[in-house]
Amino acid sequence: MVYVTRRETFAASHRLYNPAFSNEKNEEVFDKCSNPNGHGHNYELEVTVAGGVDPDTGYVIDLKELKKIIRDAVISQVDHKHLNHDVPFLKGVIPTAENIAIQIWNVLRPRISGGTLHSVRLRETENNVVEYRGE
Amino acid sequence: MVYVTRRETFAASHRLYNPAFSNEKNEEVFDKCSNPNGHGHNYELEVTVAGGVDPDTGYVIDLKELKKIIRDAVISQVDHKHLNHDVPFLKGVIPTAENIAIQIWNVLRPRISGGTLHSVRLRETENNVVEYRGE
Amino acid sequence: MVYVTRRETFAASHRLYNPAFSNEKNEEVFDKCSNPNGHGHNYELEVTVAGGVDPDTGYVIDLKELKKIIRDAVISQVDHKHLNHDVPFLKGVIPTAENIAIQIWNVLRPRISGGTLHSVRLRETENNVVEYRGE
Amino acid sequence: MVYVTRRETFAASHRLYNPAFSNEKNEEVFDKCSNPNGHGHNYELEVTVAGGVDPDTGYVIDLKELKKIIRDAVISQVDHKHLNHDVPFLKGVIPTAENIAIQIWNVLRPRISGGTLHSVRLRETENNVVEYRGE
Amino acid sequence: MVYVTRRETFAASHRLYNPAFSNEKNEEVFDKCSNPNGHGHNYELEVTVAGGVDPDTGYVIDLKELKKIIRDAVISQVDHKHLNHDVPFLKGVIPTAENIAIQIWNVLRPRISGGTLHSVRLRETENNVVEYRGE
Amino acid sequence: MVYVTRRETFAASHRLYNPAFSNEKNEEVFDKCSNPNGHGHNYELEVTVAGGVDPDTGYVIDLKELKKIIRDAVISQVDHKHLNHDVPFLKGVIPTAENIAIQIWNVLRPRISGGTLHSVRLRETENNVVEYRGE
Repeated sequence: MVYVTRRETFAASHRLYNPAFSNEKNEEVFDKCSNPNGHGHNYELEVTVAGGVDPDTGYVIDLKELKKIIRDAVISQVDHKHLNHDVPFLKGVIPTAENIAIQIWNVLRPRISGGTLHSVRLRETENNVVEYRGE
Repeated sequence: MVYVTRRETFAASHRLYNPAFSNEKNEEVFDKCSNPNGHGHNYELEVTVAGGVDPDTGYVIDLKELKKIIRDAVISQVDHKHLNHDVPFLKGVIPTAENIAIQIWNVLRPRISGGTLHSVRLRETENNVVEYRGE
Repeated sequence: MVYVTRRETFAASHRLYNPAFSNEKNEEVFDKCSNPNGHGHNYELEVTVAGGVDPDTGYVIDLKELKKIIRDAVISQVDHKHLNHDVPFLKGVIPTAENIAIQIWNVLRPRISGGTLHSVRLRETENNVVEYRGE
Repeated sequence: MVYVTRRETFAASHRLYNPAFSNEKNEEVFDKCSNPNGHGHNYELEVTVAGGVDPDTGYVIDLKELKKIIRDAVISQVDHKHLNHDVPFLKGVIPTAENIAIQIWNVLRPRISGGTLHSVRLRETENNVVEYRGE
Repeated sequence: MVYVTRRETFAASHRLYNPAFSNEKNEEVFDKCSNPNGHGHNYELEVTVAGGVDPDTGYVIDLKELKKIIRDAVISQVDHKHLNHDVPFLKGVIPTAENIAIQIWNVLRPRISGGTLHSVRLRETENNVVEYRGE
Repeated sequence: MVYVTRRETFAASHRLYNPAFSNEKNEEVFDKCSNPNGHGHNYELEVTVAGGVDPDTGYVIDLKELKKIIRDAVISQVDHKHLNHDVPFLKGVIPTAENIAIQIWNVLRPRISGGTLHSVRLRETENNVVEYRGE
């Protein structure tokens, strides 16, 4: 069993806002993250797949394939987008790093073969990062 | 003469869009950067001040002071903001990295004493960075 | 269950020295780390909290809260300090990265709610890092 | 139990190629990684040892010792070398990151005392990394 | 005048070797860098273009264009290649970082418009970097 | 003319303190940097040498030589040391980053041949860096 990780990046904007909250409550909970016009980040996404090594190739999973899957299913949907408005797989979700990571897991899980999706790690800033392992 | 650099970061959204262009022209020129709902970045700002070393302190400029100036005059204006809508010193400017750097220079220049503002460097992504030296 | 990590940094000095050892033994065991006048590091601290995502906020734990807890309980105690002399929670402890991480865990554990403290990771140099998970 | 990690780097070249495959199959599977004259990387190796903290030293394992073991047993064998031709412990192995990590584990495992080898992490590029934990 | 920098990366192998030297002299001068089977690096290339800002676009040069030029003229030639054998623009040159940077400058210079090529910076390892400015 | 840079690191402690100031004045000027027991940093030193490329070697200066000069003349003096007490070339100097950079320049200048010392860059934290060019 080897853990193989592919890093990809995307640039997106978002606003933390719960429509069930009053404006005051949104400001209290989300502070500057609820700025009405939004703000943005360079996100770093690390996707880890675990599996045995194929003796014919020395690969758990061909990283060119994993890169293609991540780009087709995730990066093309979120890069240079507004996460509240432009991304079907985030509709109805408060786009915190936690929720984005969970939804990316849900998008990638059925697309990974030749190994098992082990974790989705999402760095939102140099100081804040979340990881979801499907637990 | 020593060059002293302070790094600060901010997270913001923007949209590249020239109101004098048609929508088609904006898309042609700015491509995915003109997404109507915008996108965003973690910006890294490096401000360099050049000057002689004060023999009493060993400082060109007290970096605690430089940090305070940058935070008061720049970071508080742009962090967790939309650069097209929320920032007085960027009003009427297409918020490319080039233009943001020039405007930050203009904001900081008159506030720096105990040394001369030498450069404003702005990293927009890990691959794209601009620098303005007032030339 | 999502793992949420907050990174903070501090600059401190220390000396590796066991008062029960002779000077020769200290030098033999700790080598240049036992320099009598000490030396120092920029430490990077990563604190990970694990928990479920609150559906009202999309947060495991509000990272602004976690940042405040870490700064109040840890960073304010160790930043720009000598770890052998100035830090109550390190009294009587040889301040190796291992021991600092364990003591930071002990300080943070009772202060974290809305999730469980999962790990304390402390990078002492770009080449040396330790992690404690309360095991 | 604390997890202690030492990072080392090496620069090497390799070619992904399975002699049991035809040239066409090699190109199809390994693409540009099968360039006949090879290519290369700056590898980052992170070796993690887990163990209890010795109360006399505050160490799980003396990192100076761990560094010496890694340099003697691994870095001296692979640094500035061609991984297909110059490295005894990689003979007969397709030098993918996965296989290199497994072989480094096999080389280090019997040499680590005062703690248990927990993982070997090998970063091949800024976007690709593998980890082996002996599972 | 603003300085705009685009970073690109490539992975390549090389051997430092002067055919006019004896083997002994090559080993003496180039040491482990003259290993007969070669070794390799992940190179980081930073290309800086200087120019005025176009008031219609806010750009010195469209970074999408600069990226395309660098990838077409340089990266496609050197990525996953052996710099001594596979790269026409390096034929007959000892592929030190210095010489690679100069040749990349020569390749890019005539292809840059809408600004002037200011510098080519090439990082060969985390500790070694060269820069050429056409001086 | 090519600019060649070698990066080295060292870990040291220091205290900012001017003996001609009162304790109150020292605290006012240097704040937490004047903590009586000191504090410390991981310093990153970048030394740049400029010169023509030797056609026989492709080198401005052999980086192995430059590394040896920096380690012998600087790193061995400052690594794991207290900069106020243990370093002959810093005696009588307030060890701010500015002053350390200037003194390192003075130490290295006469030792560099086969190129001219162009700059000494010293990063004290991820946010603070100084550069001296002998101007």
